[in-house]
Amino acid sequence: MVDIRLIPIAEFQRINQSALDKYTRMELIADMQRANTLAEVKRAGSGHLGSSFSSLDIVTWLYYQEMNTIPEGLKSPDRDIYFSSKGHDVPGLYAVLFSLGVLPEEKFIRLRRLGGTYGHPVVTTPGLEANSGSLGMGISKGKGMAFAKKLKGCKGRVFVMTGDGELEEGQIYEALQTAVNQGITNLNVMVDHNKVQSDKPVKEISDLGDLEAKFKAFGWYVARCNGHDFKQLDAVLQNFKMIGDRPKIVICDTIKGRGVSFMEHPLALKLGNGLYKWHSGAPDDASFDVGYAEIMDRINTRLASLGLAPITSNLVPPVPAHASSTSKEFVAEAFGQTLVELGAQRKDLVVLDADLSSDCRLRGFEAAYPERFIEDGIAEQDMVSMAGGLALQGLLPVVNTFASFLASRPNEQIYTNGSELTRIIYACHYAGLIPAGPGQSHQSLRDISLFGALPNFEIMQPCNALESRQVLEYCVNQSKNNCVIRLIIGPSPREIQLPEGYQLTFGRGAVLTEGKDAVIFGYGPVMLNEALVASELLAEKGFGLNVIDMPWLNRVDLEWLKESVAGYQSIFVVEDHAPVGGLGDCLLNGLNDLQMLNRRRLVKLAVEGYPACGTPWEVLQAHGLDGVSLARRISGLG
Amino acid sequence: MVDIRLIPIAEFQRINQSALDKYTRMELIADMQRANTLAEVKRAGSGHLGSSFSSLDIVTWLYYQEMNTIPEGLKSPDRDIYFSSKGHDVPGLYAVLFSLGVLPEEKFIRLRRLGGTYGHPVVTTPGLEANSGSLGMGISKGKGMAFAKKLKGCKGRVFVMTGDGELEEGQIYEALQTAVNQGITNLNVMVDHNKVQSDKPVKEISDLGDLEAKFKAFGWYVARCNGHDFKQLDAVLQNFKMIGDRPKIVICDTIKGRGVSFMEHPLALKLGNGLYKWHSGAPDDASFDVGYAEIMDRINTRLASLGLAPITSNLVPPVPAHASSTSKEFVAEAFGQTLVELGAQRKDLVVLDADLSSDCRLRGFEAAYPERFIEDGIAEQDMVSMAGGLALQGLLPVVNTFASFLASRPNEQIYTNGSELTRIIYACHYAGLIPAGPGQSHQSLRDISLFGALPNFEIMQPCNALESRQVLEYCVNQSKNNCVIRLIIGPSPREIQLPEGYQLTFGRGAVLTEGKDAVIFGYGPVMLNEALVASELLAEKGFGLNVIDMPWLNRVDLEWLKESVAGYQSIFVVEDHAPVGGLGDCLLNGLNDLQMLNRRRLVKLAVEGYPACGTPWEVLQAHGLDGVSLARRISGLG
Repeated sequence: MVDIRLIPIAEFQRINQSALDKYTRMELIADMQRANTLAEVKRAGSGHLGSSFSSLDIVTWLYYQEMNTIPEGLKSPDRDIYFSSKGHDVPGLYAVLFSLGVLPEEKFIRLRRLGGTYGHPVVTTPGLEANSGSLGMGISKGKGMAFAKKLKGCKGRVFVMTGDGELEEGQIYEALQTAVNQGITNLNVMVDHNKVQSDKPVKEISDLGDLEAKFKAFGWYVARCNGHDFKQLDAVLQNFKMIGDRPKIVICDTIKGRGVSFMEHPLALKLGNGLYKWHSGAPDDASFDVGYAEIMDRINTRLASLGLAPITSNLVPPVPAHASSTSKEFVAEAFGQTLVELGAQRKDLVVLDADLSSDCRLRGFEAAYPERFIEDGIAEQDMVSMAGGLALQGLLPVVNTFASFLASRPNEQIYTNGSELTRIIYACHYAGLIPAGPGQSHQSLRDISLFGALPNFEIMQPCNALESRQVLEYCVNQSKNNCVIRLIIGPSPREIQLPEGYQLTFGRGAVLTEGKDAVIFGYGPVMLNEALVASELLAEKGFGLNVIDMPWLNRVDLEWLKESVAGYQSIFVVEDHAPVGGLGDCLLNGLNDLQMLNRRRLVKLAVEGYPACGTPWEVLQAHGLDGVSLARRISGLG
Repeated sequence: MVDIRLIPIAEFQRINQSALDKYTRMELIADMQRANTLAEVKRAGSGHLGSSFSSLDIVTWLYYQEMNTIPEGLKSPDRDIYFSSKGHDVPGLYAVLFSLGVLPEEKFIRLRRLGGTYGHPVVTTPGLEANSGSLGMGISKGKGMAFAKKLKGCKGRVFVMTGDGELEEGQIYEALQTAVNQGITNLNVMVDHNKVQSDKPVKEISDLGDLEAKFKAFGWYVARCNGHDFKQLDAVLQNFKMIGDRPKIVICDTIKGRGVSFMEHPLALKLGNGLYKWHSGAPDDASFDVGYAEIMDRINTRLASLGLAPITSNLVPPVPAHASSTSKEFVAEAFGQTLVELGAQRKDLVVLDADLSSDCRLRGFEAAYPERFIEDGIAEQDMVSMAGGLALQGLLPVVNTFASFLASRPNEQIYTNGSELTRIIYACHYAGLIPAGPGQSHQSLRDISLFGALPNFEIMQPCNALESRQVLEYCVNQSKNNCVIRLIIGPSPREIQLPEGYQLTFGRGAVLTEGKDAVIFGYGPVMLNEALVASELLAEKGFGLNVIDMPWLNRVDLEWLKESVAGYQSIFVVEDHAPVGGLGDCLLNGLNDLQMLNRRRLVKLAVEGYPACGTPWEVLQAHGLDGVSLARRISGLG
């Protein structure tokens, strides 16, 4: 790892207290925030640079010049409030809060680590005002805060940052309309209009059309400015203070990746062959060095020209890493490849995406069958109901996005589709606890429970590439029901070995390791790996743990279940899901139906509470779900 | 019951085949549809007249003049497709489909009855193209149908009706944007702009502002016309055929209740002291007679002036009624009254509504504390996130709407609020299977499961007025968590008698009847009434059924549970919820933890599959959940 340096608070104070005019000071300070943000993300190994950089000038201006938040105090009911609706720009906000002494250095340098800061905002972090990360909720939430201020007779305004991609979410328009009707006037929305979504231009994913006309049609006071021009920002915000009868919104034209030349749109898009690669993820060492040097050179050259000393910075201690095991297998990749193959056989197969085509491994299908690939943008409800219409017309839609977003936000639309007795496949990518860096908005621990009470839905999770292929083939060619496929997004910690000649069988799983002392059911590459680690550790102590891959999460063949548990008194289920509504409940019901709970107890080893944020190892351990903890818990109870 | 008469198909054919010009024919036929719709709803005892009447001219024109659906055939892939997104105007559509011979008379006269037609559209009904009733999904679904037609190379256009109130739903704007970006051109949207929501003017609930400007800003081709003027409708639709590059929308200015003078807006609003009373529910006998005579007189006067014979009609057989037991108690009323009382004590209590204030019994709070009552319109996601903002600022929001809409559509927003560790009370009105007339979109069988995996949420359902009061007091003044209160919307079938001096106790229920042979846990006035009926029937046969009211749906005191089941081998749980994720699973987990399932089995008596539509008695019986069925099932298994 390269050296990582942080510009200390004192340097921010030096520049801020210098005799320079406020615009020059803010330009310098915003660039210093960029340097610290880049260092922070590099040290974390992941994080959202593109949006942090496009929004940082605005955030810097708000905290340093516009808002009373810091002098008034973060606990004052009269403070101005800022938060970002998109949330993934939070590394930049952390940098600002660090520079102001709100966020302690030991937290700041521990982005996406247990005990540090979350990958998306969480209110338990000093200075943060709202949880976000799932898109489109911010204006509504800001409206609540603004309403509360008025009701309580408190001073202070509310500032909400939104992205531009998230303007594809319908909730935005609910909030725009109700804010006007409810007479909310102490609310200011800043649109970070950087024109690039996760990896493609907004215009390519879902063109926003005439944004100003939209906001005006909804009755808001609308301004527009260059979001990197502090004089323009200042003028807009001064003007906003004069507008007392309406909520206010400013479209800030910004540049994604602003401040590091090769991360800036549109150059970055050219360098990436049409894909923007700095939305999330940390730069490699070389890119980091070049980018960091570029920022620091610019700051120091400017300081020199202004007759000020260059910026000093401190070396940050290296990251104490715990290597997590990993393989070259990606179950989502097997899903994507199989989708392409099935697309050749089945002309009725249609694939829908909500701006996560790369992450969901849909690019292959998109390239092979562009006429059957529907990019719907960040509009999950629309995507799901559109799939309903496709299915009613005899097509077989495969709906894709992250599990957190697919299982919950369009849940009522999924129910309505289900009630039409058509067939749709819902692919819930990024299911489960891991990766845990992005934090609570992205970790999906409730998806099984959110589909579970739908009568004609079968929920599955494959444990390896082979099973992913078989699961998708089953869903497309065999099932008579709606199907939910739960997929992890990262690499498999190990390639799980299924029995030779393994064939997915309805309601049945497969034994991965024999063992006479206890049996554990699990699913997916992450948790089965931990179960296998536990089994290996327990075997050393002479405790035999029978590990069973159970890819069916809400269907179980009772005959098979009976045989599987027959020799055991201790039955465990390990889940990267909440203890309520997951596989554990399905098996418990099966055992109850079998009347097999005489002197037997089923124990769920699942994710209690809201999920922790950190590396896989940190978070699995924090929840007692890593192999070592599982071995301890199982031998204690077994 | 008054006599109910139906205009037969032959009469529609006579008028349609007359030599009159098409506009005159359609005016007559549309009015004849109104007569049949009024008869249909009166016979059902409930149904949505106001919207049926405002939309009927449009629907009549589409089916009789514009669309190829009937001549092409309902199974033809090249047919034009019509459906209503709002769905509650379906009684009018049924009348049109009946008049065209699509919907058999025996189904048509059985609105909201088992084996008849649903209160909101369901595709298993002849002629229906989509399930709807939950608002805002239609344009998205129509977009899917239109896309499928293009992909398959099929002819035919898609026509979607929307209400105006439902334009408050954000999904509408997702669909408007993506339809343009996806190049959907064979889609026509008709807005039935009748200016009245459930019982108040749209302008009072959530003003839509400049609708034309909104639709234009989203890139649609926009027209506007009088939705009761067939010449204007014709001209708009002819023009739409010329527009090949965009989706098209027409704002049809209509009159809610059109065709019956005292149901027409604005007169009806004046007669109702500011509330529109004909949105749902059937007219009393006198109103029916006056309204029906008004329509028939108008038709026959017109026919006479045109030299045609008056309309003949046939008497419809009277409704074979099965009286359901009912009391004067409404648990929601007790909830509403307690809310007012608590509002006096707690100045931090804020109440949010999504256009169902009357149904949710919020009018009292609204009148007493208008500054703390937030009308958010039909925008559940915005309402929930706004509540999140209020809670972050130290207020205690009580969020209200029907359970179907509150548990599912803003589920991700609820999760985000929950993760902020604030406190919010979610009041899920109209929970459960009954009333079953409105159909699947309104029957809430999944709400417990949708909240169940949220770690800091307590879910409760009171069984009578006293318990409703105690539950709400607990939620407001004692709980440290988020709270979900499940409430039935209708009158209690009986006033459940709780033990003298009953006081709600965390995780514990109360014995309603002693019995030594089996124990059954239930909740809410509807299912506990059926359990008590079963207990009474079984007692006659010497079988003692211990009925326990268990108001805690996801929390159980294990000591209490142990005592409660100690003497029994057969443990039943009766639920107006799906068998997955309800109280049954909570108790099963408790019994497993207690290792109390030795030679004991828990049996769930819950709602299997999608819910049936009909009277309470019909539907409880269809699901085997009426007292008689419960007694049979329990004695068979007990």
